[in-house]
Amino acid sequence: MTKTHVTKTIAFVLYPGLTALDVVGPLQVLSGLAQFDPAYRVVVLAKDTAPLPSDTPLALAASHTFDEIAEADVLVVPGGTEGTLAALADDTLLGWIRHAAAGAEVVGSVCTGSLLLGAAGLLEGRRATSHWAMRHLLERFGAVPVAERWVEDGPFITAAGVAAGIDMALALVERLAGEEMARMVQLWIEYDPQPPLGGIDWDKVDIPSYRPIADGLLASTLAGHPELLARLTA
Amino acid sequence: MTKTHVTKTIAFVLYPGLTALDVVGPLQVLSGLAQFDPAYRVVVLAKDTAPLPSDTPLALAASHTFDEIAEADVLVVPGGTEGTLAALADDTLLGWIRHAAAGAEVVGSVCTGSLLLGAAGLLEGRRATSHWAMRHLLERFGAVPVAERWVEDGPFITAAGVAAGIDMALALVERLAGEEMARMVQLWIEYDPQPPLGGIDWDKVDIPSYRPIADGLLASTLAGHPELLARLTA
Repeated sequence: MTKTHVTKTIAFVLYPGLTALDVVGPLQVLSGLAQFDPAYRVVVLAKDTAPLPSDTPLALAASHTFDEIAEADVLVVPGGTEGTLAALADDTLLGWIRHAAAGAEVVGSVCTGSLLLGAAGLLEGRRATSHWAMRHLLERFGAVPVAERWVEDGPFITAAGVAAGIDMALALVERLAGEEMARMVQLWIEYDPQPPLGGIDWDKVDIPSYRPIADGLLASTLAGHPELLARLTA
Repeated sequence: MTKTHVTKTIAFVLYPGLTALDVVGPLQVLSGLAQFDPAYRVVVLAKDTAPLPSDTPLALAASHTFDEIAEADVLVVPGGTEGTLAALADDTLLGWIRHAAAGAEVVGSVCTGSLLLGAAGLLEGRRATSHWAMRHLLERFGAVPVAERWVEDGPFITAAGVAAGIDMALALVERLAGEEMARMVQLWIEYDPQPPLGGIDWDKVDIPSYRPIADGLLASTLAGHPELLARLTA
């Protein structure tokens, strides 16, 4: 088979206040794919290209605007805390996500990015995951929450919280370009994790006890949107 | 013991062309520490606060300039490929790193950030690590290269390539603030890695065979600095 020269566009969505690692984990992985295979190009899209605050002291600037690139083959929506919950009421952003998702082959999310997919009406009846502290909210958008590192359902691939975006993105590279490419990217970014205290012991995490934190974040962030707030906290 | 209110400053160094995940991995971890314990503040420093290109399509903007914050308790220097190798000849940047390191309790690096510490004259006789493809270059700065995920020697804590910065930063949180805090940050960023193809099988990586890539990058990036180039490739 002759190698085609058609470029596939992988687009990341940027908005104010998101979690920096939610974007940069999968972005580093998929930029590795684009570096090794020029059939892919990666872009980062926002309303404009001015630097946006993240949930860290680092500000992040998109490479293109939503107006410049309206279509993508792969769409990745990162999450966060306050910034992402506020974005659940951003109809312009949700409209753009809905439009881009309709034409995409793969629609991915990291962390609470899946709530944005849900708010855009994309996850009805789909199995999906999110950050463990916010996963239950997926039900409010008609999705079926699943406690896995990443979940594939049709065109959707949703990752668990923050760092899970790296695992999800490597799974996506394998799906798009095969195992050898996924291993090459993994080697280049030296993703050979050795958490100093080992993995998370989920038996010791009382997830329902964190519910008031999620409800408090929703209440403070969505105070100006009582209908949406009621839908998420009822 | 009464809790002190003295703020410790954790400073990340930003420069053009660095690897985005080198900064953002440990930045997300240490921003988690600062979020849970107000005795810490995190800043990202560069020559100015205009957005700088990274090795991905995302541009990154510092929170403060080197002039605004000249001292830090913890300093973290991220790495990269071309951008970092070019920075080996940036005397202003190296001078700032040297000055800040002299007053810091901990000096960390990610990936080829350790080469910047070396070029600043800080790693003479120290055990240190770096990205696997560039680790041998540490010797040229008088350091002792070690193939570990992260290496602690005196005030220095150097991490292996890119993603290793997350492991290093969690070890650093444990050192600064204890095991419970490190577990809390790890849980919040859901760092429970599940690489889809497992870890890296180092027996299958012929590291010396990648030497021409490193030499090629050095030759193209440091063409204007023949003395430094000769020191690194001789």
